[in-house]
Amino acid sequence: MTSFQDILNIDRSANVPIYLQLTNAVIRQIRSGRLRRGLKLPGSRSLAERLSVNRMTVVAAYDELQAQGWIEQKPRKGSFVSDELPELMPKSIGESDLVQKVSDSIPFEVDKNLIGVSHIKFASGRRLVIDDGFPDPRLAPVDELTRSMRGLSKTPAYKKYLLYGDTKGNGQLREVLANYLNDTRGMPVRPDNLLLTRGATMGIYIAARVITKPGDHVIMSKPGFRFVRELFQQLQLNIHEVSVDKYGLDIEDVERICKRENTALIYTVPHHHFPTTVTMSPERRIRLLELAQDYNFAIVEDDYDYDFHYASTPMLPMASIDRYGSVVYIGTLTKTLAPAVRVGFLSGVEKFVDAATSYRRLLDFQGDTLLELGLAQLYRDGVVEKHIKKSLKIYKQRRDHFCELLKNELGDKLSFTIPNGGMSVWTKFNDINLKKLSEKAGKKGLAISDGSYYDSVDQQYNAARMGFASLDLAEQEQAVKILKSCI
Amino acid sequence: MTSFQDILNIDRSANVPIYLQLTNAVIRQIRSGRLRRGLKLPGSRSLAERLSVNRMTVVAAYDELQAQGWIEQKPRKGSFVSDELPELMPKSIGESDLVQKVSDSIPFEVDKNLIGVSHIKFASGRRLVIDDGFPDPRLAPVDELTRSMRGLSKTPAYKKYLLYGDTKGNGQLREVLANYLNDTRGMPVRPDNLLLTRGATMGIYIAARVITKPGDHVIMSKPGFRFVRELFQQLQLNIHEVSVDKYGLDIEDVERICKRENTALIYTVPHHHFPTTVTMSPERRIRLLELAQDYNFAIVEDDYDYDFHYASTPMLPMASIDRYGSVVYIGTLTKTLAPAVRVGFLSGVEKFVDAATSYRRLLDFQGDTLLELGLAQLYRDGVVEKHIKKSLKIYKQRRDHFCELLKNELGDKLSFTIPNGGMSVWTKFNDINLKKLSEKAGKKGLAISDGSYYDSVDQQYNAARMGFASLDLAEQEQAVKILKSCI
Repeated sequence: MTSFQDILNIDRSANVPIYLQLTNAVIRQIRSGRLRRGLKLPGSRSLAERLSVNRMTVVAAYDELQAQGWIEQKPRKGSFVSDELPELMPKSIGESDLVQKVSDSIPFEVDKNLIGVSHIKFASGRRLVIDDGFPDPRLAPVDELTRSMRGLSKTPAYKKYLLYGDTKGNGQLREVLANYLNDTRGMPVRPDNLLLTRGATMGIYIAARVITKPGDHVIMSKPGFRFVRELFQQLQLNIHEVSVDKYGLDIEDVERICKRENTALIYTVPHHHFPTTVTMSPERRIRLLELAQDYNFAIVEDDYDYDFHYASTPMLPMASIDRYGSVVYIGTLTKTLAPAVRVGFLSGVEKFVDAATSYRRLLDFQGDTLLELGLAQLYRDGVVEKHIKKSLKIYKQRRDHFCELLKNELGDKLSFTIPNGGMSVWTKFNDINLKKLSEKAGKKGLAISDGSYYDSVDQQYNAARMGFASLDLAEQEQAVKILKSCI
Repeated sequence: MTSFQDILNIDRSANVPIYLQLTNAVIRQIRSGRLRRGLKLPGSRSLAERLSVNRMTVVAAYDELQAQGWIEQKPRKGSFVSDELPELMPKSIGESDLVQKVSDSIPFEVDKNLIGVSHIKFASGRRLVIDDGFPDPRLAPVDELTRSMRGLSKTPAYKKYLLYGDTKGNGQLREVLANYLNDTRGMPVRPDNLLLTRGATMGIYIAARVITKPGDHVIMSKPGFRFVRELFQQLQLNIHEVSVDKYGLDIEDVERICKRENTALIYTVPHHHFPTTVTMSPERRIRLLELAQDYNFAIVEDDYDYDFHYASTPMLPMASIDRYGSVVYIGTLTKTLAPAVRVGFLSGVEKFVDAATSYRRLLDFQGDTLLELGLAQLYRDGVVEKHIKKSLKIYKQRRDHFCELLKNELGDKLSFTIPNGGMSVWTKFNDINLKKLSEKAGKKGLAISDGSYYDSVDQQYNAARMGFASLDLAEQEQAVKILKSCI
């Protein structure tokens, strides 16, 4: 037995766990007859030392060997090769044997299409992409941001920011954002009315989680934001969908639903409706606020691209005239800077924001302090304002150019209204099958949504948001040329 | 009426919404008699232009005035000062009138103590803090990290990382982490077995959300991790608490519960139990894995400070010998680098990780690509390994020094076992009232937990985790001196 360890080959670079290697090695030795029946095996502690492996590895291997009947562990006596060896081949062990039990017990269906905006593939850098309405990362002030972060990290005061911080988000960024929201949106918010989130996504998630409980009735638009519908489904809410016309959400239908059902929450994107880009009229906004008061529901106002409006002064958000604290306002810097800058915010009455903060603590302790500090500095230095002005000008030009192209090149094949804000054109493909078009275009190097992302449960629109902001004029021409060649 | 706008003073810098200023100004003018009964007011569009305010502001003000009875809006005719003015003072409007209705409808109680680790105040930099067991941010390789991030942001390839990325987390960081877990923990994971999360927190949240549904039975330890109990409560789970002895969780009690109740999940910290720092024995680990198989529950193995072990080779995680995919392994870089570096990971069989990723999509689209890339580089360059080696040496010295101090200075006042890993000493305060001690110490400039954070629902321990890693030797001496003076 002095050479027991020599006959057990352990390959530390292999992808098979060491305890399995050990198990299999002992089985091989027993089967070959080199370890005879009844033989006493070394104790787990001493074998672990001799093999220079973790004691747990040996315990696990012995346990496995016992379970399979190759050895027998006797309390206070030790481990022995079994007198009666298994006659059948032992169950093969290893990766192939993994029972994926945990995942089989997942209590909900997962919509794979939600992962990573997979309805449009970004995979290859060489492809042209007509996206859902994203900003152009080539314009983002990343250099300023990383320079600011690096500068901050070198200050003596910085080390304290490496400790746990405020779950509401860094106070400096909340302060500049509160001022910014006052100035640009007429919202009378103070830093304590703000919870910084991970993009708009986390804001919507937390608002829905905090306001509703399973079985509650909620209202959203149709067509609407598929991600939100999926979220509401996961939260086991009863979803009511109301239609959208050129003045926005059908408020009369909202009222009909409220009369019938005890409604907890309405999700709406009044500024540039998703996906249609329609702006809700002032009259309907005020009516919606009144209904919220009459029927005691919360309004989740998603205003993710407020900063990008081309026509005139943008309509102020409902949050700016909310007298009763009915509105939870959701914003994000993602569209302003770049998708990968995952900072957004939720604003509401302080008591609500405190509750939302407690809930956020359960799923994400805090934001990235260094990033938040860096962004606060960009606001204070006027870099963000300058960036918005610059990109607003560029995006307006891109919108005009893109809409001209669509009109001149594809004419009666499409229907769309020129959007007065945002980063995409809601386009209906009259007689063209968008699914087939998307497939054809893909083969020619142009990624465009097949429209299924925008469909409702019971309605297909054969339409897509066509993002113009992330393509420069030449790229737009190339993209439309490919589209034309596919029709 | 040509001077209508002149008599309405709008103060754009005030914190009161403009529509309210407008409302109040009109009321003042009506009350003073300058606007007489029956007078036709300008249309909302033209007044908005004249006052250079948003049209919605005017519509909202008129609406408010009508609701209060000051004016009358007649369809297709316009708005008129009412013939019958309200006799009573109009309801005062403004912030004081905000009905905090949304927050009143929050369907759960919020534990304020969970916000920002408020059981220990970090407020002032001048204070000494005995924390819960956090790393020393003064040691963190922040300079290397921000340098790496800034360098990356200047590469031409970087812009594409500013687009939406993989919800699972950046592929490069998952690749180096998978290798790291193979090398250091014997876990046969590939990048697809990993979901990068925001610290351990989000990993635990998502695992619990995906595995359980309301009403399910779950097991955790007592004393245990208060945050996890709070989370389980929010998810409306039936919590069973089992005790902990010097070999870890009482496995026989676990089995008793499983026999009685259909158990969905057990949460455990086998390496350095929270809060007691006990390491679970190999025999119990293997028994727990067997039970998971027999009773079909998932094991959430939280291993947040695996990298910090001082005695000998650390025990391998249960995930390294998990044959059936029962274990969801939770790790974090937070303890390795600094609390503010919010990157952790969840590992499990691929199907489960895919489901967890779908769920993560609902609450947080993706991680911070730049941070994740920067961290990947630190791993590849060996910076993380070097940092761990360095801090391991320092923390071991700090642990020894701190335990010596506690023994020599406070002797029989305390009971504790020297922890073989982690960053804190689980300390029982024999005859001393920890609440009073904490209060006294606070007045002398030393923050220390009053122990309530570690109490169970039905049991108080008069004990606290005393973090030694974030205090250098001189600070430790100062802290213990203050403690001694308070007893």
